Amino acid sequence: MYPKSLNELIECFRYLPGVGERTAERFALKVADMNEEDVTRFAKSLVYLKEHLHHCSVCGNLTDDDICEICADTGRDHSQILVVESSRDVNAMEKTREFFGVYHVLNGLISSSKGVMPEDLDLELLLKQAKDAKEIILATSTTIDGETTAMYLGRLLKETYPNLLITRIAHGLPSGGLLDYADEMTLSHALSDRREMR
Amino acid sequence: MYPKSLNELIECFRYLPGVGERTAERFALKVADMNEEDVTRFAKSLVYLKEHLHHCSVCGNLTDDDICEICADTGRDHSQILVVESSRDVNAMEKTREFFGVYHVLNGLISSSKGVMPEDLDLELLLKQAKDAKEIILATSTTIDGETTAMYLGRLLKETYPNLLITRIAHGLPSGGLLDYADEMTLSHALSDRREMR
Repeated sequence: MYPKSLNELIECFRYLPGVGERTAERFALKVADMNEEDVTRFAKSLVYLKEHLHHCSVCGNLTDDDICEICADTGRDHSQILVVESSRDVNAMEKTREFFGVYHVLNGLISSSKGVMPEDLDLELLLKQAKDAKEIILATSTTIDGETTAMYLGRLLKETYPNLLITRIAHGLPSGGLLDYADEMTLSHALSDRREMR
Repeated sequence: MYPKSLNELIECFRYLPGVGERTAERFALKVADMNEEDVTRFAKSLVYLKEHLHHCSVCGNLTDDDICEICADTGRDHSQILVVESSRDVNAMEKTREFFGVYHVLNGLISSSKGVMPEDLDLELLLKQAKDAKEIILATSTTIDGETTAMYLGRLLKETYPNLLITRIAHGLPSGGLLDYADEMTLSHALSDRREMR
């Protein structure tokens, strides 16, 4: 019932995650209300992103350059590699300002439910990056797929580089977490990974 | 911390209603994953919309043409005009397939809280369209601004065209509405607008 121009844009917005028909409608009508300059900028930034953004040839992180900013930073510890699922995780971790090593971005997780097998991930890139590393911190999510991936990668890395230190991020109660609200899995990990107070 | 191309697109997505930083981030990363064809289509549809979409010169509805599809439809009853706030409302009403008149889209509501005065709406267009009408159905929302606008328009239309029938959509309990969940305003309207059962 909407004009063609509006329907076409609504359809495009529906490609975005979590955007249903009504939200896409609201977005498109908002664009109709925006000034021409902002809409042009929006359109250009879509094209610009597609032309420039790709994966870092060292670590798999998203970057506009050949090598991402973090890999290019000589001030960081390149012998400590934190392995994550996506660039969003890199961003989240960087916000803590507590990690000074480098990353490896898998751009996916091994997942039996989604049919993603180990060979679907570019693990050669990880092995190449891990070659001169001292520690690999497996920091995939504590979901089933995250745990599966961490377990698989742990074994693969150990087999390839027997002297490499391989660690897994802690799994326990989140900050501000109430004990009686936590699920059993979280509690059982929080208990088994308890540490001595000094 | 993201590359420039990604940050720029994230900022653009933040213009959309209800989109915060994390959602904009998810959207931009989704675009990074989309194939080039889809992204190009997205960008083009933004530009196309801005170039083609505007308000119908008769009723104010959004259209790609000079006159919207509904106004151009000679099969509809042009003497019955349903007045709504926006093109979204036209779309919602059309989905009922129960209205065969035409619309007038105000593209706004009189609002003291938002500082929108009657002269900010193109009421000349409404008066022009209402000239040969038999009935005007005021179908703005049953919010404070919607009621204010309906009241103002009702008076304006009555003064201008004393013989015109001016009606207001019913205000009562929604379908499937539980009496004890309804607010006082709704209940009081549902009571005062009660009708005889036949």
